[in-house]
Amino acid sequence: MTTSDIAGSATLTGVIPPVCTPLTPDHQVDTASLTRLVDHLLAGGVDALFVLGSSSEVAYLPDAQRKVVLDTVTGHVGGQVPVLAGVIDMTTPRVLEHVRVAVEAGAAGVVATAPFYTRTHPTEIRTHFRMIADAAEVPVYAYDLPVSVHTKLSASLLLELADEGALAGVKDSSGDDGGLRQVIMGRKAPFSVLTGSEVTVDSALWMGADGVVPGLGNVDPHGYVRLFGSAARGDWEAARKEQERLVRLFEIIQVGGARMGGSSSGLGAFKAALHLRGVIDCPATALPQVPLNDDEVAQIGMLLAAAGLL
Amino acid sequence: MTTSDIAGSATLTGVIPPVCTPLTPDHQVDTASLTRLVDHLLAGGVDALFVLGSSSEVAYLPDAQRKVVLDTVTGHVGGQVPVLAGVIDMTTPRVLEHVRVAVEAGAAGVVATAPFYTRTHPTEIRTHFRMIADAAEVPVYAYDLPVSVHTKLSASLLLELADEGALAGVKDSSGDDGGLRQVIMGRKAPFSVLTGSEVTVDSALWMGADGVVPGLGNVDPHGYVRLFGSAARGDWEAARKEQERLVRLFEIIQVGGARMGGSSSGLGAFKAALHLRGVIDCPATALPQVPLNDDEVAQIGMLLAAAGLL
Amino acid sequence: MTTSDIAGSATLTGVIPPVCTPLTPDHQVDTASLTRLVDHLLAGGVDALFVLGSSSEVAYLPDAQRKVVLDTVTGHVGGQVPVLAGVIDMTTPRVLEHVRVAVEAGAAGVVATAPFYTRTHPTEIRTHFRMIADAAEVPVYAYDLPVSVHTKLSASLLLELADEGALAGVKDSSGDDGGLRQVIMGRKAPFSVLTGSEVTVDSALWMGADGVVPGLGNVDPHGYVRLFGSAARGDWEAARKEQERLVRLFEIIQVGGARMGGSSSGLGAFKAALHLRGVIDCPATALPQVPLNDDEVAQIGMLLAAAGLL
Amino acid sequence: MTTSDIAGSATLTGVIPPVCTPLTPDHQVDTASLTRLVDHLLAGGVDALFVLGSSSEVAYLPDAQRKVVLDTVTGHVGGQVPVLAGVIDMTTPRVLEHVRVAVEAGAAGVVATAPFYTRTHPTEIRTHFRMIADAAEVPVYAYDLPVSVHTKLSASLLLELADEGALAGVKDSSGDDGGLRQVIMGRKAPFSVLTGSEVTVDSALWMGADGVVPGLGNVDPHGYVRLFGSAARGDWEAARKEQERLVRLFEIIQVGGARMGGSSSGLGAFKAALHLRGVIDCPATALPQVPLNDDEVAQIGMLLAAAGLL
Repeated sequence: MTTSDIAGSATLTGVIPPVCTPLTPDHQVDTASLTRLVDHLLAGGVDALFVLGSSSEVAYLPDAQRKVVLDTVTGHVGGQVPVLAGVIDMTTPRVLEHVRVAVEAGAAGVVATAPFYTRTHPTEIRTHFRMIADAAEVPVYAYDLPVSVHTKLSASLLLELADEGALAGVKDSSGDDGGLRQVIMGRKAPFSVLTGSEVTVDSALWMGADGVVPGLGNVDPHGYVRLFGSAARGDWEAARKEQERLVRLFEIIQVGGARMGGSSSGLGAFKAALHLRGVIDCPATALPQVPLNDDEVAQIGMLLAAAGLL
Repeated sequence: MTTSDIAGSATLTGVIPPVCTPLTPDHQVDTASLTRLVDHLLAGGVDALFVLGSSSEVAYLPDAQRKVVLDTVTGHVGGQVPVLAGVIDMTTPRVLEHVRVAVEAGAAGVVATAPFYTRTHPTEIRTHFRMIADAAEVPVYAYDLPVSVHTKLSASLLLELADEGALAGVKDSSGDDGGLRQVIMGRKAPFSVLTGSEVTVDSALWMGADGVVPGLGNVDPHGYVRLFGSAARGDWEAARKEQERLVRLFEIIQVGGARMGGSSSGLGAFKAALHLRGVIDCPATALPQVPLNDDEVAQIGMLLAAAGLL
Repeated sequence: MTTSDIAGSATLTGVIPPVCTPLTPDHQVDTASLTRLVDHLLAGGVDALFVLGSSSEVAYLPDAQRKVVLDTVTGHVGGQVPVLAGVIDMTTPRVLEHVRVAVEAGAAGVVATAPFYTRTHPTEIRTHFRMIADAAEVPVYAYDLPVSVHTKLSASLLLELADEGALAGVKDSSGDDGGLRQVIMGRKAPFSVLTGSEVTVDSALWMGADGVVPGLGNVDPHGYVRLFGSAARGDWEAARKEQERLVRLFEIIQVGGARMGGSSSGLGAFKAALHLRGVIDCPATALPQVPLNDDEVAQIGMLLAAAGLL
Repeated sequence: MTTSDIAGSATLTGVIPPVCTPLTPDHQVDTASLTRLVDHLLAGGVDALFVLGSSSEVAYLPDAQRKVVLDTVTGHVGGQVPVLAGVIDMTTPRVLEHVRVAVEAGAAGVVATAPFYTRTHPTEIRTHFRMIADAAEVPVYAYDLPVSVHTKLSASLLLELADEGALAGVKDSSGDDGGLRQVIMGRKAPFSVLTGSEVTVDSALWMGADGVVPGLGNVDPHGYVRLFGSAARGDWEAARKEQERLVRLFEIIQVGGARMGGSSSGLGAFKAALHLRGVIDCPATALPQVPLNDDEVAQIGMLLAAAGLL
């Protein structure tokens, strides 16, 4: 179960991987691989799915491809678990278009960042999330990703929007676990705090986080599910041990190194690993990302093997 | 004339305002006001128009509204001057969609930033512009806007892309006139260097820039046309005098101050001024921008009056 | 005991507060208050002291005042616990001067940031720490404080310097607990990993950190000592409970708000609290920091009372 | 003449190079080379000298070396031209120490940045400059260098401090010539606006700047003096031609490239050029900067030859 009823409301919990978007060699959405990936994640025991997030290469997908992803995943999942949808765009009016499409496709919630590209003020960020909440008929989750958005969502802003019911939760990919804790301790009503950091999940759960949205969960959903399960049972030693194994596995994202951007090396590594594990047919990333070369893929293979995944 | 034939090629020159997008009170594109604004600019003697740039609130316009703007302006202009179109989006595949629409609508050129939101490498930026150039059937201009894109396009990258013919020019809104000069002095073939800085036009032209893309040119196209004309005639004293008048007028963008974001105060000021001057029907800016209040609009009125524009 | 012998080496562990520098109303070092503060910390059970760190207002202290602090504290402590000294300055040659003074004054270790003000390369950062290690006759700790230094010390750089023996540990005030964990898991020999984050101490210790350098530890050393002790005994529930109390207390640093810089509100809050608790005679912060006003001090008093400290 | 009396006040004008600090191979100040460098600059016709600026490697010089530089230069110059002194340090109390030393050594003015390393508020920056002005018995110049200080001095802050007499001028090394122009146009009383950008001097003077503080002026003082002289005579074509030659020469700072920090490649290039031109005995830069290698020095030699300087 990914939700727990508290005072009539529902809080999203557990492992909610941001689903990679497999592509064909000519950069179309590979729906067959995508459904295989979804099956792989469900078989791993994840609690919900998050499509069209940063790890899904949402920034690279034209609207038509976004819709293919949405329809493919919601159709294939058929309500077994909630499917959240990223509605990533520069400002409110553009985000609202994605919200409409996502809700029509059956998304159980939408995930939105603060405005980006524009020079934005906290007042405008508040308006932005309130307008999204007004328009969406599903819960709205804030996506805190300063490395992309160049704005940090402060704990006070998140708590204000939580208190008024505009936000149902936050995916915190800021890496600022002090801020995460402020939100956890400051919330007055059910409000899902989900860490987006692959390597501090045990500690985030320890602080009271409700779940995790790990890009690396594409590669090893079983690992994150074991981690969350151990924590939920209070077996923190087992959680830490699993987390440490995943920390070592996470080195795959650094293999690409300085000859490419961070998106290329991170997303390329996830896809290379999924390809090596036989889940997807082609490891291609969207353009203009730099592809990993054979040596780099071989290094990723060794790290997978070391983690017991090959 | 906005283009000059050099060895069979054409370089875009002169005053090319980024056309504001007038909105109705309920935030639809106000096409009647938009065509009046275009007439106002053409009457001012501008050399080309740039629609769907940052000053056009492109970041706030859903694709359907972008298309209304494109069709309205290219239709109304009817070839009197070139119409450039911004193709602003996060990455290459999304930008290419906008390129297709812009070219179909009759844009004479497209203007693209580096990828944003993603963590990008110069190699990827190069691929990005090359792919746009391959797909577009019109000249491609790079848009250097670090305040939005969080990447500065280096002179060496621009010159490399210029030399191989991928880029026809650059709109430099970085505020780095040293870098602008490097590009001007480093170009080997016709390559339009256009400054996007409203307040250093005389000096950019002095360095050899070909033209200017001034947001403030919406408010006072005649002023920028006089400035450019004076410079073209070599009457630099007159150019400076005109520029200094425009620098004082440019204070309108600071009226909104710290209670709103920079986009709100800047774009709000342009629209308030156009409304006060009777060009557009409604000064509304797109959401979630904070609107200027009556006091602020009154201050803008006084600055307009001081500049001889009311 | 603050050190544990592992294979002949010693690792610094436990609670090591960065000692505030009490000032007189005319901004001289108040040595009487400083020794009282040291006694307060020792009575709290701390394992070592760190003078001349950021929380000590080192950036505001001329060299003569720095020396007064060093001599006062090392003299008063008389070897009861190790005293580490910050050697904070722009580049290696200036840092080396501070190293010499600190070692002469009896510091048990020195704490240095990467170069700042200059535009620095990882190669230069490596040289910097190697030169400090060569010159110091005491262990050298890296101080990772990107908010001040505008460089993040990567895990790989820290581990390389650890492996070659140049660094004995790191004080990580980056807030990046994922990076902290990489260092913890990557170290091959004794290497003290100390978190500088006041609000994630239990989780950092859980990951394997050796200790904490909490500015808030000036105000409530007993709390951090209880926290560390609980963790050391494996009573993580008690550690978390103590941590959460300290998280709420930490709100004192936000009382100053937006009318002053972060240094003023943070350091001003620590000193106001120490003054309210009767430890120091005067809450003055060094110039040009903005002092807290009476209302703000009253709010800090209420937060202290809520934490059981008044 | 470097100053012009206007209503009893004096405005600093002309070419004011930031004097490099020659070092011996073992990194002591090479006073013989320093006086030769001063003679080289005076022979070039410069109007004043600026010691202990960023180009002087001030960030790398311990206080004793700073004093050697000050005494050597003021002693050697003997009042022929004004000598300004950088008083670069983290905060007001530390800066005030440098002010005292500089004034005692005979500096005709002091040059201070905003506080750095600390998290600073505009209110604190105002206090900082006011306190410096109160303490100094000589004119105070603000040094706007966001790349080092990580704060941009706004035009409104500078003008406020100018109006109240706290600042006598600004050295603007921000690269933001729009902001420079705002200061030029906004000043109500004599206030020296000096550009620190080597490559936009003609245009800054065109806008009304009073002078230039060019690091590259160490290498080619005659060039900058000719440039300024041409502009002063109103021969802007000659000024531009000279500027363009200097832009090409300025490529020397990029020779070091990505294998070192920007300080190393820039300051290393100036010193390599001074060594090749026979002005200083040793091109060593302070540690931990990366030295240029033979190939890089050879490239610098070719650029010097192309500029007619070898």
